[in-house]
Amino acid sequence: MQSVGAPFGKSLFVLGGARSGKSRHAQAVAEAAADQAGARLVYVATAQAFDGEMEDRILRHRADRDARWQTVEAPIALAATLATKDGAEVVMLVDCLTLWVSNLLLADEAIAARTDDLVKAIAGLKGRVILVSNEVGQGIVPDNALARRFRDAAGLLHQRIAAQVDSVDMVMAGLAQRWKGARPE
Amino acid sequence: MQSVGAPFGKSLFVLGGARSGKSRHAQAVAEAAADQAGARLVYVATAQAFDGEMEDRILRHRADRDARWQTVEAPIALAATLATKDGAEVVMLVDCLTLWVSNLLLADEAIAARTDDLVKAIAGLKGRVILVSNEVGQGIVPDNALARRFRDAAGLLHQRIAAQVDSVDMVMAGLAQRWKGARPE
Amino acid sequence: MQSVGAPFGKSLFVLGGARSGKSRHAQAVAEAAADQAGARLVYVATAQAFDGEMEDRILRHRADRDARWQTVEAPIALAATLATKDGAEVVMLVDCLTLWVSNLLLADEAIAARTDDLVKAIAGLKGRVILVSNEVGQGIVPDNALARRFRDAAGLLHQRIAAQVDSVDMVMAGLAQRWKGARPE
Repeated sequence: MQSVGAPFGKSLFVLGGARSGKSRHAQAVAEAAADQAGARLVYVATAQAFDGEMEDRILRHRADRDARWQTVEAPIALAATLATKDGAEVVMLVDCLTLWVSNLLLADEAIAARTDDLVKAIAGLKGRVILVSNEVGQGIVPDNALARRFRDAAGLLHQRIAAQVDSVDMVMAGLAQRWKGARPE
Repeated sequence: MQSVGAPFGKSLFVLGGARSGKSRHAQAVAEAAADQAGARLVYVATAQAFDGEMEDRILRHRADRDARWQTVEAPIALAATLATKDGAEVVMLVDCLTLWVSNLLLADEAIAARTDDLVKAIAGLKGRVILVSNEVGQGIVPDNALARRFRDAAGLLHQRIAAQVDSVDMVMAGLAQRWKGARPE
Repeated sequence: MQSVGAPFGKSLFVLGGARSGKSRHAQAVAEAAADQAGARLVYVATAQAFDGEMEDRILRHRADRDARWQTVEAPIALAATLATKDGAEVVMLVDCLTLWVSNLLLADEAIAARTDDLVKAIAGLKGRVILVSNEVGQGIVPDNALARRFRDAAGLLHQRIAAQVDSVDMVMAGLAQRWKGARPE
């Protein structure tokens, strides 16, 4: 299992299934990094509450984080938000990219252009960033075309992000395994 | 690939997708462990046959195991069954936890309390236990709320079990990879 | 991350989710292997275009490959096609096995016998082969029986292929990890 205190460079991508513990892992890594460096913690939420189920989840996640975290919302303008909140002494956590893709799809935004902007923003950050996303491509092909478009968009985004960041952790059952970057013993 | 004869401590969690070969891997590990220690083998089945498709699967799995195995059924009372069948010279195989979660959901049982009981039972065993489960969280978000509840419950259970056991093997295409515990060369 | 130029023996199985970058990885490995050995490249397409969406995808994939590739179609008779195109100086890329399983199911072919033939064909090749497939078993159990049959057939096929080939790469987010065969540093 990947240690939460292991160095990840400037950027880490955390990918895992639903309820895999990916957000908890990412948050623990962010807090350990901030503790080591005396950095500020910024939580960049992509979630939009459309229904009670989602609202409950957002509030529960927020309650899990302590007072050290500043929370900002970026359902669409993610690259711009990262640039605005950036700083040498900042660790940002983006949770999560699949919701962001979903928001872009529903708002009929140009996903490819938004992805280019995000990749450029990550490359240009002075601080550190951890991005969380949901692996959604290992089940049966979905019946409806929108779900297939979402799945395709998420997978292509994951490839772009994984290629850009310094480190990638895969999470299953609460266990993280480093697939890119230094693999600590 | 993980060797089936590699030491796994007192408890092993085997997680994989449908038809990944996870049950076969778990069974081979259990038999190798029992052979080394002269232990008895107990198969703890969580399956309940609701239809012909499931009944066929149960009978096929039973035919795959030889006469060394004692089979007990524990669709709901899993922790109590483990305690009853436990012994220093016993290797138990629980197959599988996702069916158990499904049974609990359908019977309107308190999954969190049942999970606490299971985790405590695993911690207190004199013998060894191998638990098998199905990764179900890497596809598209399911349309219906019950499937989402099941997926959430399974994922949370997997995190609890993986945190408790000594070793975790991930299985894909019949190949096992150790994600927790000693990684043999 | 797995280097595309790493040795894989005579046969490599590349398994990953939808839009995981598995085809791109397999293609890069094939081209690197052909470059090293001065071999010819043969693309064995299992796809059949039933609709516009699939046709677009086939044409896009074909455009991604350069003139070095010869393309043959093998929606059903895969083992025979491999034997026909084989040669000591050939690298074949089969993309992908899940579509082949799907074709067999829809044509009511005997999947077990076809799988036996494929495994034998791989074992007997003079040249090298890379086979790509889609992991489809890590989501929720599908509602309809045909999708469950497909998922079962794909999973069983993956186990057979992984047991036969020299090397297996798992791909997520464009990153490949070797699960079987030499793991280069």
